[in-house]
Amino acid sequence: MTWVSGVDGSPYGVTNLPYGVFSTGGGLPRIGVRIGSWVFDLAGAETAELVLAAGALCRPTLNDFMALGRPQWTAVRQRIVELLTDVTHRPAVEPLLVPLTDVELLLPFEVADYVDFYSSEHHASNVGQIFRPGQPPLLPNWKHLPIGYHGRAGTVVVSGTPVTRPTGQRASAEGPVTGPSVRLDIEAEVGFVVGVPSALGSRVSVDDFADHVFGVVLVNDWSARDIQAWEYQPLGPFLGKSFATSVSAWVTPLDALADAFVPAPEQDPPVVDYLRDVPHLGLDLRLAVEWNGERVSEPPFAGMYWTPAQQLAHLTVNGASLRTGDLYASGTVSGPDRSQVGSFLELTWGGAEPAKVGTESRTFLADGDTVTLTATAPGPDGTTIALGEVTGTIRPAR
Amino acid sequence: MTWVSGVDGSPYGVTNLPYGVFSTGGGLPRIGVRIGSWVFDLAGAETAELVLAAGALCRPTLNDFMALGRPQWTAVRQRIVELLTDVTHRPAVEPLLVPLTDVELLLPFEVADYVDFYSSEHHASNVGQIFRPGQPPLLPNWKHLPIGYHGRAGTVVVSGTPVTRPTGQRASAEGPVTGPSVRLDIEAEVGFVVGVPSALGSRVSVDDFADHVFGVVLVNDWSARDIQAWEYQPLGPFLGKSFATSVSAWVTPLDALADAFVPAPEQDPPVVDYLRDVPHLGLDLRLAVEWNGERVSEPPFAGMYWTPAQQLAHLTVNGASLRTGDLYASGTVSGPDRSQVGSFLELTWGGAEPAKVGTESRTFLADGDTVTLTATAPGPDGTTIALGEVTGTIRPAR
Repeated sequence: MTWVSGVDGSPYGVTNLPYGVFSTGGGLPRIGVRIGSWVFDLAGAETAELVLAAGALCRPTLNDFMALGRPQWTAVRQRIVELLTDVTHRPAVEPLLVPLTDVELLLPFEVADYVDFYSSEHHASNVGQIFRPGQPPLLPNWKHLPIGYHGRAGTVVVSGTPVTRPTGQRASAEGPVTGPSVRLDIEAEVGFVVGVPSALGSRVSVDDFADHVFGVVLVNDWSARDIQAWEYQPLGPFLGKSFATSVSAWVTPLDALADAFVPAPEQDPPVVDYLRDVPHLGLDLRLAVEWNGERVSEPPFAGMYWTPAQQLAHLTVNGASLRTGDLYASGTVSGPDRSQVGSFLELTWGGAEPAKVGTESRTFLADGDTVTLTATAPGPDGTTIALGEVTGTIRPAR
Repeated sequence: MTWVSGVDGSPYGVTNLPYGVFSTGGGLPRIGVRIGSWVFDLAGAETAELVLAAGALCRPTLNDFMALGRPQWTAVRQRIVELLTDVTHRPAVEPLLVPLTDVELLLPFEVADYVDFYSSEHHASNVGQIFRPGQPPLLPNWKHLPIGYHGRAGTVVVSGTPVTRPTGQRASAEGPVTGPSVRLDIEAEVGFVVGVPSALGSRVSVDDFADHVFGVVLVNDWSARDIQAWEYQPLGPFLGKSFATSVSAWVTPLDALADAFVPAPEQDPPVVDYLRDVPHLGLDLRLAVEWNGERVSEPPFAGMYWTPAQQLAHLTVNGASLRTGDLYASGTVSGPDRSQVGSFLELTWGGAEPAKVGTESRTFLADGDTVTLTATAPGPDGTTIALGEVTGTIRPAR
C-alpha cells in the first residue's frame, strides 16, 4: 500500500510503476515514474540521493538507465516501491510528486533501430484472405520463422503527437496517381524495448529475453494501405509506414508484468532449435481500440503465435547486434473474431464492410479522427494494471 | 597546388578532401580530412583556430558538422584548401598532418536511419530473370517510383570490419534448415549521407537535394541470398541483410563531385511530378569490385535509373522526417554487361555459372575471402578523384 493519495484501486499502483520522460512548463526533460495520477520525479529523487542509479535517472531519456541491466532495474524498482510505501519517506518524496495534469509527456527513449514483426496468425490470415482471395491465407514461411522487417526509427513519435495524413503514390486504373492516402489505417501492436545491447556477431538466446528487454510500450503503426499496396513488392513496406509510428509515453517494466505471462499457443509444425522457448510464454495483455471515443475492438495479445522471446532470438540469430533503445513491435494484434482485430483493414474487411463509429459509417481514417489504444494486464493478487495509452489524431495532408 | 609533399597526381588531392574520423594509438576519435597519404587533423586545426566550425570539428563523429548546412560546409572546405595550398600556413598546419599508416579509421558518422534503394534497372532486371524466369523482369511499380526499404542502422560498420558469416534459416527440400549461409554475396552500392534534417510532415523537393545531402560513401550491402529468399515474403529483406553493411571510412563531400554530375538515363514512362528533377542528373562514379585482389567487375553508377535527388524526394514525400546521419544507398549498381554487375548473384547468374577468382572457381563468398570496392570520379580539369574504399573479409560462422 502506498501512502500517495488517491492511488487505491488505480491501475497505476505500486505494482505497476511505468517509466516515462516529462517536462513541466517547457523545462528540460526529466525521468519519472507514474503512480496514480502523479509523476514521481526520479531525476529529483536521484539528485536528492533518495535512489541511486549511477546518474542514469538524471538524463533526458531512459536509455542510460535501460543500459544498466536487470539487476539495477530491479534494485531501482524495489527502492521506488520502498519510497512510495514506507511513510517515513513521505516528507522527502512528496515534494517530488507532480500532478500528471501539469506535465508534458515526451518520447521516453531514443529509438535505435525499429523492427516490426507480423506475429498474429489471425492477422496474417485475414490479410492473406483480403489480398489473395482463393489462395492459402498464410505464406509457406510464416509458421517457420517470425516474419519481420525494419521500420523508420526517426519517425517514432510519442502518444499525442498529431499524425499528418501521408501523401504518396497509389495504383489506379489510369496508372499511378499521387495524392493524400485514401486508405489510412492503424495497427494495434505491443512493442518491446531493448535495454542491454549485444555484440555484433553474437546471438541472443530465447532464454536471455529478460536480460535484454527492459519493458513494453503500446504501439500504433499507422499504415497507408493504398501507398503500401503499390510500393511493397518486392522489398516490403516503406512509405506506407514510415510517416509515423506512435508509442505510449509510459514504458511498463517487465517486472510489472510478472503475473501476465501465460502459455502461448502451441506451435505446429515444431519450430527449429533456436526458436524453441521452454516454457513457451506469451503475455496476457488485453488491448482495446477506441475510434473517436468508441471502443471498436479488443485485441487479445495472449493469442500471438510468436512470442517476444522468439522474436528477439530470431532478430539476432544472424549475428545482428542489439543497441540500447532498439524497439521491436509484435505486428498487428488480432484475435479470431471481428471484434478482436487490430486494424481497420480487417475491421471493415478491406473497406468492403464499413464499421459504425458513433453515428457515422467508416472504412478508413478521416481527417480529425482520433484513435486511442489502451491495454490492461493481470497484476499480483487478482489486481489489474494498465499500460500507458497511445493516441493520435489525424491532420489533413499538407 | 598543395604544399603537402607527395600529393601531386594523387586522386586524394586538394580537389577531393574527403572527411573521416580517426584515432591514433587508441586515442579518442578525431575528425580529419584526407590529403594524399596524410590525414589533416581538423580537431587540432579547430582547436588552434585555424578553421572555425562552431566546435563541430572537435566532436567524435561528423554529425554535428554535417548538421551545419551547405554554407558552412563550403566555407570550411574553402578554408581547408587555403590552409593546404597557401604555404604561409605550412608551419601551423604541417604538425597536424598524420600519416595514414599511423591511424585507425572509424565509422565517420553515427547512422540515424538506413534506407536501401533498388535503383539500377540492369540489377533489378537481372534479379527478376534469375528469380522469376519467364516473367517480366521488372515488376509493374519499378519505373514509377524508386523501390526501397529500411535496413538496420545499428549494423552499419566501417570499412575493414570483419564480417562474420550469418546463420539463419533457408529452405530445403526437407523443409527449412538452420545453419551458416551458403550463398553469401555482396552488393556494390553508393550511399548518400544526410546532413541537414527536415521536419516531420514536410517534404524535401528534388531541387533541395544539395541542401540536405552532405556527401557520398561507398557501401557494401552484404547479403545472404539463401536466408533472404526464404524470409522475404511478404515484408521484404530482413536477416538476409541485417548482419552487416560496410561503408567507406571516407565521406566524399558533394562539393568534390561538382564535375561528376552527368545526365541520367531518360525515364520512360514519365515520372510523376514530385519525382521530376530538372536537370535530371546522375553521378559519373566508376566502381570496381575486387574479389581477393582480382578485379571482377566495374559497375557504372552513371547508368542508374533513379537519381539520388529523386530518391530523397521519394523518401520524404509522405512527410517522413530526415535526421542528421541518415544514410540512403542506391541499391546494387549494375551495368548492362556481365563485367559490370555489382553482385555475385548476377556475376555467377544465380550461382549457375561460377566465376574464376584467381586460380579458383567461385559462386558465392568463401570464409577468408576479401571483397574491396573502390570508385573514381571526374574531378576538375580532367583530373580524377578517388572515393574511399570499402573492404571486408569473411569470418567463419560462430
